[in-house]
Amino acid sequence: MKTIPLTEIPLIKPGDDLSEYILESLKNQELALKNKDILVIAQSVVSKAEGNIVDLSSIEPSSRAKEIGKKIDEDPRRVKVILDQTQEITRLGHVLITLTNHGFVCADAGVDDSNVEEGKVTILPENPDNNAEEIRKKIKKRTGKEIAVIISDSWGRPFRLGAVGFAIGIAGITPLKHLKGEEDAYGGQLETTKIAPVDALAAAASLEMGESHEKVPAVLIRNAPYESGEGSISELFRSEEMDLFR
Amino acid sequence: MKTIPLTEIPLIKPGDDLSEYILESLKNQELALKNKDILVIAQSVVSKAEGNIVDLSSIEPSSRAKEIGKKIDEDPRRVKVILDQTQEITRLGHVLITLTNHGFVCADAGVDDSNVEEGKVTILPENPDNNAEEIRKKIKKRTGKEIAVIISDSWGRPFRLGAVGFAIGIAGITPLKHLKGEEDAYGGQLETTKIAPVDALAAAASLEMGESHEKVPAVLIRNAPYESGEGSISELFRSEEMDLFR
Repeated sequence: MKTIPLTEIPLIKPGDDLSEYILESLKNQELALKNKDILVIAQSVVSKAEGNIVDLSSIEPSSRAKEIGKKIDEDPRRVKVILDQTQEITRLGHVLITLTNHGFVCADAGVDDSNVEEGKVTILPENPDNNAEEIRKKIKKRTGKEIAVIISDSWGRPFRLGAVGFAIGIAGITPLKHLKGEEDAYGGQLETTKIAPVDALAAAASLEMGESHEKVPAVLIRNAPYESGEGSISELFRSEEMDLFR
Repeated sequence: MKTIPLTEIPLIKPGDDLSEYILESLKNQELALKNKDILVIAQSVVSKAEGNIVDLSSIEPSSRAKEIGKKIDEDPRRVKVILDQTQEITRLGHVLITLTNHGFVCADAGVDDSNVEEGKVTILPENPDNNAEEIRKKIKKRTGKEIAVIISDSWGRPFRLGAVGFAIGIAGITPLKHLKGEEDAYGGQLETTKIAPVDALAAAASLEMGESHEKVPAVLIRNAPYESGEGSISELFRSEEMDLFR
């Protein structure tokens, strides 16, 4: 498997067609897409292309946002944006862990003030599976190639320091691989029943993307072992009753 | 970055020298190690080479192990092995989440009955950093190359279904990259202060390893962007007061 950073993609503005920039970057790097290639694209540019940017100066914080902002030492206007993206506060300690309207559990509902103009934040796309599918279809139309698309974000984890890439939207790839019934190297039945290839691919891509000034908002992954298929990122959501931490 | 599965490694027995098998596999695949290559090696083979295998028939379950076994529908002898590896039970629901003697938070203290003979389980190495360092040193001696070594395991996650690879022991690589003070693509200061490249690398390798009959216990990663350095996997441990889930 090979991960190739896609460079020379300009800073994205609302309304930009991401698939065009990606195809242009591939061309500049003399890369022709192949069937079964995977494109991992950073949430920040998907959000920006879709116009999911909030100018904090336009936000009037609620009293709840002010209260939480005080508790976690955070701009109450930013807290208001987070609460608008949240169906439930999962934990409130030194950070705010939320169940987003989509069903993701992550810090700050994915509201991000890095890689955007000062005083603004990006919010997660409303339906990242749709963004992935749209890009997959456009690229199929332009190149004829059957690829998979993963929209990724960098999240912290409970128990472990340091962020890694997670998949937040997918198209053309089965998100959860069921192993139950398969044999291990000793002919035994496997106990671990599921793996999450889309998160592993997002994590791999996150190494090439970096987090800062690298300006690599997309990564091509080639020759990855994965199953093509339909599917939604929601297949990775743990139900509340199977989640010991909610 | 490129991930290359190392094949033709035989089933490992206690006392085997893993670095010899890895070098043999590289030779068979006509791969010469280069400086800054990374070897990701599955916990299962490290544990087996070190003899960290427990025959369940030799275990007398304690009354606490019997009680927990009944609650989670698990062999009480296996529960006894898990408790011996555990300094604290973090959560006890439909599964057993433990703080291992090392300081990892994971299900079943990493006790695994896949990819080992029936009736036996592997337990995590006592000090996986030491295993990684030993392999790194042996390979340096044999090839002259400065590489990094990551011992990996596949773990489930809170909030997300599906296992992915995590690093459990490291050598020659900085586990946590601090970004504080770096600039993003817009010249702003970064809020996300740390990323965990060793977990991302373990996740990438886990795609090539698979979980079942693939018999790929090690993966070579080439051209990965990483910082060489000393360090311990314990740098990724979240302290209890910074962990909203403990």
